[in-house]
Amino acid sequence: MIHFKEAMAGIRKEAPLVQCITNFVTVNDCANIILAAGGSPSMAHDIREVEEAVEGVQALVCNMGAIEDTEAMVLAGKRANQLGKPVVLDPVAAGGTQLRRDAAARLLHEVHFSVIRGNASEIRSLAGGQAAGSGVDVSVSDVITEDNLMENIELVRQFAQRIKTVIAVSGKMDVISDGTRTVVIHNGCPMMSRITGSGCMLTSLIGAFCGALPGDSFTAAVTATAAMGVCGEIAEQQRLQKGTGNATFRTDLIDAVFNLTEEQLMEGIQYEIYEG
Amino acid sequence: MIHFKEAMAGIRKEAPLVQCITNFVTVNDCANIILAAGGSPSMAHDIREVEEAVEGVQALVCNMGAIEDTEAMVLAGKRANQLGKPVVLDPVAAGGTQLRRDAAARLLHEVHFSVIRGNASEIRSLAGGQAAGSGVDVSVSDVITEDNLMENIELVRQFAQRIKTVIAVSGKMDVISDGTRTVVIHNGCPMMSRITGSGCMLTSLIGAFCGALPGDSFTAAVTATAAMGVCGEIAEQQRLQKGTGNATFRTDLIDAVFNLTEEQLMEGIQYEIYEG
Amino acid sequence: MIHFKEAMAGIRKEAPLVQCITNFVTVNDCANIILAAGGSPSMAHDIREVEEAVEGVQALVCNMGAIEDTEAMVLAGKRANQLGKPVVLDPVAAGGTQLRRDAAARLLHEVHFSVIRGNASEIRSLAGGQAAGSGVDVSVSDVITEDNLMENIELVRQFAQRIKTVIAVSGKMDVISDGTRTVVIHNGCPMMSRITGSGCMLTSLIGAFCGALPGDSFTAAVTATAAMGVCGEIAEQQRLQKGTGNATFRTDLIDAVFNLTEEQLMEGIQYEIYEG
Repeated sequence: MIHFKEAMAGIRKEAPLVQCITNFVTVNDCANIILAAGGSPSMAHDIREVEEAVEGVQALVCNMGAIEDTEAMVLAGKRANQLGKPVVLDPVAAGGTQLRRDAAARLLHEVHFSVIRGNASEIRSLAGGQAAGSGVDVSVSDVITEDNLMENIELVRQFAQRIKTVIAVSGKMDVISDGTRTVVIHNGCPMMSRITGSGCMLTSLIGAFCGALPGDSFTAAVTATAAMGVCGEIAEQQRLQKGTGNATFRTDLIDAVFNLTEEQLMEGIQYEIYEG
Repeated sequence: MIHFKEAMAGIRKEAPLVQCITNFVTVNDCANIILAAGGSPSMAHDIREVEEAVEGVQALVCNMGAIEDTEAMVLAGKRANQLGKPVVLDPVAAGGTQLRRDAAARLLHEVHFSVIRGNASEIRSLAGGQAAGSGVDVSVSDVITEDNLMENIELVRQFAQRIKTVIAVSGKMDVISDGTRTVVIHNGCPMMSRITGSGCMLTSLIGAFCGALPGDSFTAAVTATAAMGVCGEIAEQQRLQKGTGNATFRTDLIDAVFNLTEEQLMEGIQYEIYEG
Repeated sequence: MIHFKEAMAGIRKEAPLVQCITNFVTVNDCANIILAAGGSPSMAHDIREVEEAVEGVQALVCNMGAIEDTEAMVLAGKRANQLGKPVVLDPVAAGGTQLRRDAAARLLHEVHFSVIRGNASEIRSLAGGQAAGSGVDVSVSDVITEDNLMENIELVRQFAQRIKTVIAVSGKMDVISDGTRTVVIHNGCPMMSRITGSGCMLTSLIGAFCGALPGDSFTAAVTATAAMGVCGEIAEQQRLQKGTGNATFRTDLIDAVFNLTEEQLMEGIQYEIYEG
């Protein structure tokens, strides 16, 4: 049983300050979705201040889209680990280039993450599997489908258990595991891949929920993923009604997070839990 | 008496080119709000060209969110000073880390600013007071309220007088002083703190007004602050009518600046002047 | 005769992956307009990975707004040339500072571009003419008008022929030449210069069309320019109906690209072809 309502209430009550070391493509959207959820963002990423900055926040998000800030992520992540604060990783295009494979390996080695969220090819790359990632998007052969769901649940669960981190794989079906429990979420819509930043925003949202629920990263990751999916569906319904496009969809998606009620979330979620 | 109407007419007539050395989180919004007001933005920030670039513009904005560009701000600011062009500073999170305290001190020492705009904790940090800033947002103990208004007016006025700079403190009540006159503005709304970039955009807008009114930075700062507050109220009214969220509010806020008439501004402003 | 319909069908069918080395001001809009058109963006720009990254994409866009990434553009551009992939250049503010004149000269010397798109003063600067560019915007004396159209067509055609590159000059009238054929497009609207990124977005869109039509950069540049102009008109009609401003116009412009049908494009285009 996942305490969705308590998590939603918690993020509005705690108003966590979340530091994101993230990429310039989607940084504005990441800041605004944290604000939409009730948190407060700090985008400090300068290597000379990240360790000091992390002392004042409730959670840290490291987004490998900012590949040039890998060193800052290591420093901030280690400091956050010392302070017992949750750290969330988005391994953007982790398997795409040698630079990213090296950065991902280094981050996993130096920092303990509470949650790692990526698409299937990114997570497979981290897990040592063979990924055929092209750019930042999931490659078709790495997509989790009904046909390969059970084996992927097991893969994700094992990887989560091995590195003692909540693993969240985003896609048509989202698979999230803490190494024992695994949740599969069926929300979301294809439009989410027609805007830049759906993944980055979700990772930032997970960071915000982790900041509000520091002891329960699994609930944080599951609730954030469910909320994002439900809000994507709300925004998609609006798009179909208004005849708008991907730019308005992005705006409506963030608005939906802003206005999301506990009731909307509970009614909208479609998920199953698999006990390890 | 503040010449709001003349200032509004001036920015549309002069169409000032404003150079912003600003942070990647809100840079797009800063450019678009300058365009909305009738100005033209240049975001050149490379240390190798900022001095040359500043020769062609009507005003320079230095935003410490781009902490890695501090050296570029010093070079561009000194060149703007030589050329007699207005320079506006946004001391983002000035008291938040040692790096920022040092950068703020250096900027104040090397560059003369026409206007410095920040929240109360940022301005207190610059003024040498004790600020308890957390991240980029104002900390509660630094908020200007009805109860502490008179002492804060005096603090801001003295600081403005000491460094011969218009000081603009943003918050529920905005306090703006040139060391003699002090204006308190009561416009704006809480939603402005639920988007990223309200402060950065206001500073950019001040830069645009300074570019149009180079001899009168006080009127520029007051008019920009009033315009931003009135536009925030317009956007908030739209949000309540439409049931939208913070992302649409951001869009509507910039649109409101685009469409703001002198009449709307005059009818909407709520302010008092305190003579020194 | 330009195969507009086939180009539109092609970009939706091919879904080209486009790598953009572009500036932080408009990077989000560039990514979203590529997605709107049916492509997929990658904004990898780190010097250590751009050559490897370019191997997986269908086109490369180099935007000189990211002046600090000039070296990365050279490396990525040379690799793209080796691989026979189209490379598009946006010479942002090319004549504005010495740094940019040097960067433009170096890029033209080291990389062969399939298309170069800029405003008249930027293109004149590249062509060795005298440009009076101020900031990133076209200077009045460099505007192409009915009066100087024929001489500008010849100037653009000669430059295109000389460097064997499709040259696309954006403005009230767009002039695009491959050195033999020259197309003049009359679409678009003044609002496009009241948002930041119209030019950057168009260049990214040209990159996406080049990725879908690698053998025909001329058709790619003409179709992208026509599509952007028609979509600008659609967005402007919406703005006038809704009474919105430049921020909503930006959103509606990207939405219009998302929803653009081949029929809308064919009905909306206003153009002439001049044979060499």
